[in-house]
Amino acid sequence: MPLSRILGEYMAKVVFEPSGKKIKVSTGTTLLEAAKESGVTIDAPCGGKGTCGKCKVHLKSGPLGDITASERKKLSPEELKAGVRLACMASIEGDCIIDVPKESMLGEQKILIDGTETVVTLDPYVRVYTVTLPKPHLHDNRCDWFRLEDEIATCSEYTSIDFDLSTLRQLPNLIRDNNYELSVTMYRNHVLDIAKAPVEKVYGAAVDIGTTTMVAYVMDLTTGDIVGIGSMMNPQIPYGDDLMARISYSFNQENLEKLSKLVIEGVNKIIAEGCMKAGIDPSVLGEITIVGNTAMHHIFLGLYPKYLSLAPYCPVVKQPLDIPAQKVGLVAHRLANCHMLPVMAGFVGSDHVGVILSCDIHNSPEMTLAIDVGTNGEIVLGNKDGMVCCSAAAGPALEGSTIKYGMRAADGAIERISIKRGSLKPTYKTIGNTKPLGICGSGIIDIAAEMLKAAVIDVTGSIRPELEDENDRVQEGTHGYEYVIEWARKTGLNKDIVITSNDMREIQLAKAAIYAGVSILMEKKGITAKDIDRVMIAGAFGNYIDIEKAMTIGLFPEVPMEKVMSVGNAAGTGARVSLISREKRDEEKVILDKLSYVELATHCTFQKHFVSAMNFPHKDLSLFPETMKHVYAPIPRNKK
Amino acid sequence: MPLSRILGEYMAKVVFEPSGKKIKVSTGTTLLEAAKESGVTIDAPCGGKGTCGKCKVHLKSGPLGDITASERKKLSPEELKAGVRLACMASIEGDCIIDVPKESMLGEQKILIDGTETVVTLDPYVRVYTVTLPKPHLHDNRCDWFRLEDEIATCSEYTSIDFDLSTLRQLPNLIRDNNYELSVTMYRNHVLDIAKAPVEKVYGAAVDIGTTTMVAYVMDLTTGDIVGIGSMMNPQIPYGDDLMARISYSFNQENLEKLSKLVIEGVNKIIAEGCMKAGIDPSVLGEITIVGNTAMHHIFLGLYPKYLSLAPYCPVVKQPLDIPAQKVGLVAHRLANCHMLPVMAGFVGSDHVGVILSCDIHNSPEMTLAIDVGTNGEIVLGNKDGMVCCSAAAGPALEGSTIKYGMRAADGAIERISIKRGSLKPTYKTIGNTKPLGICGSGIIDIAAEMLKAAVIDVTGSIRPELEDENDRVQEGTHGYEYVIEWARKTGLNKDIVITSNDMREIQLAKAAIYAGVSILMEKKGITAKDIDRVMIAGAFGNYIDIEKAMTIGLFPEVPMEKVMSVGNAAGTGARVSLISREKRDEEKVILDKLSYVELATHCTFQKHFVSAMNFPHKDLSLFPETMKHVYAPIPRNKK
Repeated sequence: MPLSRILGEYMAKVVFEPSGKKIKVSTGTTLLEAAKESGVTIDAPCGGKGTCGKCKVHLKSGPLGDITASERKKLSPEELKAGVRLACMASIEGDCIIDVPKESMLGEQKILIDGTETVVTLDPYVRVYTVTLPKPHLHDNRCDWFRLEDEIATCSEYTSIDFDLSTLRQLPNLIRDNNYELSVTMYRNHVLDIAKAPVEKVYGAAVDIGTTTMVAYVMDLTTGDIVGIGSMMNPQIPYGDDLMARISYSFNQENLEKLSKLVIEGVNKIIAEGCMKAGIDPSVLGEITIVGNTAMHHIFLGLYPKYLSLAPYCPVVKQPLDIPAQKVGLVAHRLANCHMLPVMAGFVGSDHVGVILSCDIHNSPEMTLAIDVGTNGEIVLGNKDGMVCCSAAAGPALEGSTIKYGMRAADGAIERISIKRGSLKPTYKTIGNTKPLGICGSGIIDIAAEMLKAAVIDVTGSIRPELEDENDRVQEGTHGYEYVIEWARKTGLNKDIVITSNDMREIQLAKAAIYAGVSILMEKKGITAKDIDRVMIAGAFGNYIDIEKAMTIGLFPEVPMEKVMSVGNAAGTGARVSLISREKRDEEKVILDKLSYVELATHCTFQKHFVSAMNFPHKDLSLFPETMKHVYAPIPRNKK
Repeated sequence: MPLSRILGEYMAKVVFEPSGKKIKVSTGTTLLEAAKESGVTIDAPCGGKGTCGKCKVHLKSGPLGDITASERKKLSPEELKAGVRLACMASIEGDCIIDVPKESMLGEQKILIDGTETVVTLDPYVRVYTVTLPKPHLHDNRCDWFRLEDEIATCSEYTSIDFDLSTLRQLPNLIRDNNYELSVTMYRNHVLDIAKAPVEKVYGAAVDIGTTTMVAYVMDLTTGDIVGIGSMMNPQIPYGDDLMARISYSFNQENLEKLSKLVIEGVNKIIAEGCMKAGIDPSVLGEITIVGNTAMHHIFLGLYPKYLSLAPYCPVVKQPLDIPAQKVGLVAHRLANCHMLPVMAGFVGSDHVGVILSCDIHNSPEMTLAIDVGTNGEIVLGNKDGMVCCSAAAGPALEGSTIKYGMRAADGAIERISIKRGSLKPTYKTIGNTKPLGICGSGIIDIAAEMLKAAVIDVTGSIRPELEDENDRVQEGTHGYEYVIEWARKTGLNKDIVITSNDMREIQLAKAAIYAGVSILMEKKGITAKDIDRVMIAGAFGNYIDIEKAMTIGLFPEVPMEKVMSVGNAAGTGARVSLISREKRDEEKVILDKLSYVELATHCTFQKHFVSAMNFPHKDLSLFPETMKHVYAPIPRNKK
């Protein structure tokens, strides 16, 4: 009888070597449970049923429960004598020290997700199981299906498996031709492939369908490594730069089919590009995960997107979807799954769910603000106790559109700029170090912040008229004052590259929309900027902008700089995380449950917040004390 | 507070009008539970959650628990005043009388399954749900999927539903174009069709693929009626009369594909024939259920059947399968399910599982012997406590093959015959009342029994040589004695139609194989013929043979005649039962669990039983006391 049954339940301390991790647990707890709780990841593919024999550990000292029948079956007499136990079977009876050999550690890897601090365990839904089937005889005439199923059950958590008809047709010969030794590639409990053992590798792809650019990450699912990347501009761009244009175009069913076909072909192209770089054929991809904003998600699937754009902005479907890749039109394994991450609302898409997933906001105690800046700024605020989100119609100004000399981030685009206080002389850097042709997004944020700090503009965003006389960088254009970044002769355009008063207005509208969204979310959570623990700027945009300058113009609330980080393409990272981690995949639904959506357009305080946020950085300057120190710093006398 | 809470729990008697059914239950039980237990089937599509409001009943007298919030929501003040309650919400507080109005009775029908005494409740997996969706507004911006799903949940047991991509693509417009009033046809929780409400009818087909003939029953799933039948000879016959020949032919993959294609095309043809008779298009069939012996099952699905014919005779798959009909190649609704009933062993197929299902052997307390006579006699013995089965290699003698003048049951076949004791003069009936051309299965059983009773043969099956001198009906042929059924001039062959000593031997081998199988099953169950409560003879064969004569020759054990019944095409009936009853469908797995298979070929006592059963009716005459009274009855003197 186990000691604990006699003594009653009490607490015992367990130390796991070589990591030295410790935990106190009730007696009677299994070593596997204790290890899990302490953060030691012991391999137990059978789910702790005592059937796979993988969770061997070594008892160094202390009392454990009696050796079980399963252990006698799975461990040799020598092993038992040497103190080897199965962690899933051995119960803790008192303080003990356990050695976990390397081969019993979960074949899992902890993968640091780039840009964020999130660590993910490699445990994809697509896996290979290598089994040896017992040969049939008159007293074991199980059917082929059950023969394989029973064996898979011993080394996985699946008690039943599923076949498509065409694999089933080959099953009897596959079993016998390979002498009962098989490698079975599975997606969940569905058999994708059966082949002569051993098969080592399985692959998948994670795709981010952006309004502007699309990226595919081809991944080795046995290592979690990206083995190839493909990317291209979204081929729908000719049918509309922004989402609303594409949704409107898709009101017509034929047009929807055209856009859907374009994006599917595009995704196939970038996946093929990634596969080519990895030296594999797309037909080995066992699964594809996809993120995109709600309109991209709907158009990709051919779901009629009209009602996304009409109040109350209902998506056709919100929850995560698993659809045969073949049905979607994706080129992959013929049985590959296409997993669509869930969308939250008409304008908060699976890209933003991907951001939450990869930044682990839904599990974190830290109050996190994540902003994906784009034509629609998708914003979430919250932590493990609940999150609110919204979509702010920022418009395309921060991406360079609607700005007189705005342009995409291409050669010749001014991406960095600073303005000398006093002289107002700018120093800038162009992409490709060529003559400037215009200003891209990061440059636009820079120039607004620099013009504010150099007092070219005041807090209302107006270019100070008195400067026209003081400094030839400020001149009157066709629509009011403008600031000259570069003189015509030094540009690639033979025109002065300027920022106009109109441009300033466009920037103000964009940043005010986002800030107002953040304000309403803070209001909903009942917090102020001081309560925010982390600010995460996502999107390609977030990679390039100068975060401090973005804060200077009041794109988001002022917080200490060390709390702000750029998390890169966190949406795409979310798709990757979903591809390689069952746990994270399953959390997608948790995110939907914990997340509530706020419709800004009809929100009663939106207008107030929006107007207040039009100022640089804000009408209420007390919200930006640190920023204002720079703005109000004494300006050196201008030596004209 | 409910009275029972104050008084403590005690028993109360509830009477349900108008049926008058009574039951005693603990107080606190809901009326719905009590009704169910008493056999009164109240309609509660929401599963008793109080959301559908269908289970209205009328309290005539006695105490019930307080009116719940759900009841206030679903019942009008007038109804509440009149004593109307929801059966699922109202708890029983003491003896009471409840009136169940007709409209609250389950829309289910009890259907008497022909040939058997089984009653089945109409409750197919394919159903139509008619719903009105709440229209979206800013405070209810659920996605279209959830909007429909939530509504289906109120009137079905499904808490989640599933779409294929192409229906999902149409969903937003289907909802809005039909003003939120929809009829949703579903297979389980999968949406097959969405249409303007109301849709009334749904259809399905049940198919029996026999080695020789195939039948399709097209059924109205809202009534359980057969609305059209199609049938044809199995188009594989040219590739082999019997199973072994077809299995051998299919060792070659190309041949397998050829036979598979033939049978699928055949099934499509007979389904189309049934649909034509019903005046419907096959594209409305929501589900197709299929039975057949294991070889037919495998070849139909294109599963390599070779190992069915080699020890240890493993099927590729045993359990019930649900495969998209489209993938199988069947013509039906594009999303229709094809349900294959399970097979038990290499030579006990889903046809026999269908027999068990339709005869309800697995639920019956009666010890039942069911025999499906054919080239392989599939035999099951048992009851709800467990069943054993086997396949007896009877050969084709009882179907007319290997018998000198044997023929199929067609015009000119002798199907009934009796022989006058003493004169040995036969009286017979041919199919179509034409001149005889040969003898079919039922005639073969008859002639053996009559020759035994008339003492043309002795119990060893030998034609008594002394008769050659006594009666010109007995003559010496090329291979021993033969009995003349009809003289050449009166036949359509211009040859004497005779039964030879060889024919008798073939009949003996066939019936001995079946009897030996039954003997071994009785041995396994530890019973004798006296313990058998019911004998069911299945198959087209069972419909035509004279059961008493079959018992006379010892095809199965002697039991009182009232215990024996012919159950017709019970295999096909099983397919129909599976189509119209979820409960029965789910019992298919129960049957597999309760059924164990005995391999006769390697069974140690087979040879002994087989040899003993070669005699007419058996070597141990004490097993056939009643039969022997006829055989040993005094024979009138022959007036030659």
